[in-house]
Amino acid sequence: MKIVIALGGNALVKGKEKATIESQFRVVKQALRFIPELLKYKHSIVITFGNGFQVGNILIRVEESLGKAYALPLDVCVAESEGEIGYLIEQALYNLLHKHKIKTSVVNILTRVLVDKNDKAFRNPTKPIGPFYTKEQSKELVKKGFKVVEDAGRGYRRVVPSPIPLKILEIDVIKNLIKKNIIVIAAGGGGVPVYSENGKLNGVEAVIDKDYASQVLANNISADLLLILTGTDYIYLNYLKKNQTPIHKINIKKAQELINQGEFQDGNIKPKLQAAVNFVRKSGKKAVITSPENALKALNNKAGTHIIK
Amino acid sequence: MKIVIALGGNALVKGKEKATIESQFRVVKQALRFIPELLKYKHSIVITFGNGFQVGNILIRVEESLGKAYALPLDVCVAESEGEIGYLIEQALYNLLHKHKIKTSVVNILTRVLVDKNDKAFRNPTKPIGPFYTKEQSKELVKKGFKVVEDAGRGYRRVVPSPIPLKILEIDVIKNLIKKNIIVIAAGGGGVPVYSENGKLNGVEAVIDKDYASQVLANNISADLLLILTGTDYIYLNYLKKNQTPIHKINIKKAQELINQGEFQDGNIKPKLQAAVNFVRKSGKKAVITSPENALKALNNKAGTHIIK
Repeated sequence: MKIVIALGGNALVKGKEKATIESQFRVVKQALRFIPELLKYKHSIVITFGNGFQVGNILIRVEESLGKAYALPLDVCVAESEGEIGYLIEQALYNLLHKHKIKTSVVNILTRVLVDKNDKAFRNPTKPIGPFYTKEQSKELVKKGFKVVEDAGRGYRRVVPSPIPLKILEIDVIKNLIKKNIIVIAAGGGGVPVYSENGKLNGVEAVIDKDYASQVLANNISADLLLILTGTDYIYLNYLKKNQTPIHKINIKKAQELINQGEFQDGNIKPKLQAAVNFVRKSGKKAVITSPENALKALNNKAGTHIIK
Repeated sequence: MKIVIALGGNALVKGKEKATIESQFRVVKQALRFIPELLKYKHSIVITFGNGFQVGNILIRVEESLGKAYALPLDVCVAESEGEIGYLIEQALYNLLHKHKIKTSVVNILTRVLVDKNDKAFRNPTKPIGPFYTKEQSKELVKKGFKVVEDAGRGYRRVVPSPIPLKILEIDVIKNLIKKNIIVIAAGGGGVPVYSENGKLNGVEAVIDKDYASQVLANNISADLLLILTGTDYIYLNYLKKNQTPIHKINIKKAQELINQGEFQDGNIKPKLQAAVNFVRKSGKKAVITSPENALKALNNKAGTHIIK
């Protein structure tokens, strides 16, 4: 079976405020604990990951050092985050496999993802990234041409376009490697966004949703399963209300209806469920959304929200 | 023929002080211009690159944002630089190949390189990295436990260990990909340095010389040619003296003698020539040291310093 495992930001960072490289190593190691068991069944595995927290920190470093170090546009920040987080995951997984005497190779592929330069997201940036600012600081940013929004009580944040991913540019390489039973880490942070102009590729200042990029990757390699790992064991109906109910199994028609009715939060669960629905609609057998702790149980149909045809 | 092309820092950045991402894109594009011609001969190509300038800038960003963004140890800085520079090279090369209607895939592999934790370099750090400091600032760094040296008139710099690379950890993946005629970008910045302790890999604060890492990679894949591209067309005897003479062809015995006699500068030409000698001694047919502008001529034996058995 071909499985794409999408590791969410919550699966990478716990207790964001004090996260260090060391703590991220620990959390990643913990999150990947189920992989050795999975490999017993000879599955082909591609791992993708989010970079919200890490790319935010890269942006802070860029801003704090302006005039002393050269500036990095957002596409290059994403490329750096792919190196950084990909390394953590690769190393943690290598050590985990070694402990279980498994000799499978692991590799992290720098991944660029094609977007449409006329994507309407470029006219309407919505994805909050980077540090929180005071009202005064936010005014300065607006003067510099950035779009800034207020983030419910926590301050002001820069928002950037989040265009729809069309194609994983390194897909041939990824296909080659999984055929050889190599575990591939790819499409980190949603991939480096590039657009094509007369066949020439240009990077663009945007951040692609990593769940949508994972879905495109999963469809591109004809994966059987898209396993989206996040901070919650299930998707819930009436989340945080008195009648909150976990969804165990849902078909894509019903799931799409609930999304359209506005049942789920914009920033978190909604894109994950939409990515799951898109994957199954296009070619996948099943998508599952759950926590890393419940990944194995979910694969045995004993936990998680299962999205089917 | 299998060729490993090592792109030096001088081939990536011209006019360091004002380098931006845009200028680096231009310089890289220029440096890679010879590749399409090379591909006509069905060579397998691996490209490695230096990161001195870029990892220095990453370190500045880390230092300027301490307390605001989490700190990055040096191995993670190298991993980030592999993402950053690998992206620039991959994108520039993709566009160049597209212009020449060549459909070869290009991929950048995050590469870790094994070092010995008892390497004597860890007791005696010698490689200068990152920004220049004043004498006062350097005293602060020393208090924090860093080793700092004075860099001839330009100020004080941090020095880090530069251990000998033993093994390219992603070598199986690289071999797989070049068999499929995919151009592989790997071992950026000398690779992320890791050491093994009871089989478990740990990152370590060091920077591996990229020419030595390229040599190990070239030997590991049984490359025919190691092509080291730098800011000079030839290696010279009596460099910058009245009787300066370019070396056109030299065997490894003579080259090793000259190195041992102290004919070449420690920081620049010496490791390149030593890497060339090591490569030919171990398994390679030939190594060539020249500038990107002279790469094609050098491959036709009409330029560059050729190091042979």
